[in-house]
This record gives sequence, C-alpha cells and structure tokens, in this order.
Amino acid sequence: MGRWEPDARGRLAKAAMALYAEQGFDQTTVAEIAARAGLTERTFFRHFADKREVLFAGSAELQKLLVAAVASAPTSAAPIDAVTAALMAAGDVFNDERRNYARERRRVIVANAELRERELIKMASLASAIAEALQRRGVSEPAASLAAEAGIAVFRVTFERWVDEAGDQDWRALVRGSLEELRVLVS
Amino acid sequence: MGRWEPDARGRLAKAAMALYAEQGFDQTTVAEIAARAGLTERTFFRHFADKREVLFAGSAELQKLLVAAVASAPTSAAPIDAVTAALMAAGDVFNDERRNYARERRRVIVANAELRERELIKMASLASAIAEALQRRGVSEPAASLAAEAGIAVFRVTFERWVDEAGDQDWRALVRGSLEELRVLVS
Repeated sequence: MGRWEPDARGRLAKAAMALYAEQGFDQTTVAEIAARAGLTERTFFRHFADKREVLFAGSAELQKLLVAAVASAPTSAAPIDAVTAALMAAGDVFNDERRNYARERRRVIVANAELRERELIKMASLASAIAEALQRRGVSEPAASLAAEAGIAVFRVTFERWVDEAGDQDWRALVRGSLEELRVLVS
Repeated sequence: MGRWEPDARGRLAKAAMALYAEQGFDQTTVAEIAARAGLTERTFFRHFADKREVLFAGSAELQKLLVAAVASAPTSAAPIDAVTAALMAAGDVFNDERRNYARERRRVIVANAELRERELIKMASLASAIAEALQRRGVSEPAASLAAEAGIAVFRVTFERWVDEAGDQDWRALVRGSLEELRVLVS
C-alpha cells in the first residue's frame, strides 16, 4: 500500500458512478475515475479489478450476508423461513442512504447490455449460493432450489419496488409484502 | 437459397452437437460442423448466425410457445393459472425424443462459462416476456413479475428434474409436482 488515502475506495466509487451517469459506462476510463477522485490509477487498481467491478463489488458482500442468514436461521425453521431471514438480512445494507446509490447504479446498468448480463449472472449466483446454504441445513432437492429461486424472485421484485418507491416503505416491509403476494398468487 | 438440402438444418444441428460433445464448444469450428454434416459453410450460415446459435435457436421458439399460452388462457384464469398453462404448453416440445438432446445440450452448456451466461440471459428474457404477456391480460405489477418469476423458478427446477429423470415421468407431471411443492413451500 502507498501513502494513506482517506476513504480512497469510497471516493473512487463515487467518482466512477458520477462519470458513468454523466457520460456512460463505456465512455469512462479508469484514468478519468482516478482523476475525478483526486487519486492515481494505481490506487484505483488497489481497490478494484476494473471499472465494472466498482458496480459489482457490493454483490459479493450481499451474497455473504444472505448465506450467513440462511445458515444461522433456527434449526427448526422451514426452508422458506430461512430464505425469508436472508431477505430480511439484506435490510442491513438496503437502507435509505443506499437507495439513492441503488437508483443511480440501476440507471447505469439498464443502459448497458454487458452490465445487464453481469447483473443477471450475479443474481443466478446468489440463487445457487442460497440453495447450497439450504442443502447444508439438510433441505433436499428440489425443495432447496425451489425455495432459493422463489426467494430470488421475491428479492428481485422487492428490489425494484424499493428502488422505485417514492415513499418511505423500508426494505423489510416490502419483503413482507412481496412474500405475502407470492403466497396469495400460488395458493 | 442454393440447391435443396434435405433437412440441412437438422443435420447441421446434429453434427454441431456431436462435435461440441466430442471436442468442446470452443474447439469446434463452423467449417468442421459443415463438413461433418456433409454440407458447406455457406449452408450453415443460411440456417444459423453462428455456432452458438445452434444451441439457442430453440429458446425463441419456446418463448413464443409460452407467451402464446399465457395469452390464450381463459379470461377468468388467475395469473398463476395462466403461467401454469404456459409451463404445460412447454410439454409440446419437451417430449421423450427431446430429452436426450436436452441432456447433451446441457452438458455442453455447463462446460462453458459463456454458454452458461447465455442460458441465464435466455431465462431472464423468458421471465420478462411472460410478465409482459400477463400485463397484457390486465395483471398489474408487481403481481405480473412475481407470477412470471415464480413460474420461471418452477420451470428451471422442472427442467433439471426432467433432464435428470431416468424414469418415464413426463414434463407435465413434473410441472404439476413442482408447482405443488412451491405451494407447500410458501404456505
């Protein structure tokens, strides 16, 4: 590590997002991101593998959080309850502060085919990770995959509502609403 | 079109699949596929845009079939019943003959990261198309997306079971089983 850069990672992420929004993801270079943040390219590459990674660094963190919540659900919890615990745990990161970031990030991703595909892949990876966490709890197939996939369906719908929501409905309330709607839909 | 080639498309698809299985997708060229089928590269490109398209040509057909089934479900049908009709309609293509092809195709896709990603994208596109077909029936959001995503979750789980199934359970029986499991899981 070079000299200490106060919150270099946060400054780089903020600069990157601002540039992606202003001029598009494809048109933005790492050199520009570093310059906007008042840092060097070298510092950028200490924090992110490439300019795409700035947008997806949070996905790995989210996956860990959800998998940990599935794992630590009470032994007696049904598969869907373990999945619900995971969806609720995402509320730790999806707070009001994060919502503006999520909105900007989505705008950047929707505008770029490669980024849209990356996002799909991250979601599929999340579904697999949850299915595996359920299997480790002793849930057999296809129940584990079905519960995980249904959980991700709820996650996606909840996420869209949360990002679009003008009001003050918080993540957990929206999760509960979407789960209840799924229940009504399939019953 | 050049001179008439009896079932050129089918012969090319069969040759491609055999070569992908034998030597891998990346290692196979269009020239080899055409030679194996006893046809020219020119003929290959009259039927497929590229060697990847051989594996995904069926996805567009499947999407049309499912969307048409959603559209033609009785007006009184609940969203999940329209989705169920779509899943059942897939039974028209997922017959016993198709199962061997599906098994080989999956083996090729699982072995290649780019193909796995393409498959995810096709599934996401299928979910969006079903959600839009539900919206055209007057289903509001988020019910349309949730029903479509839940339907795709059932589709994926059913597809895995159908491909793996050694016995003679047919597609429609497996769909009914997966839907029932989803119902039990979320209730």
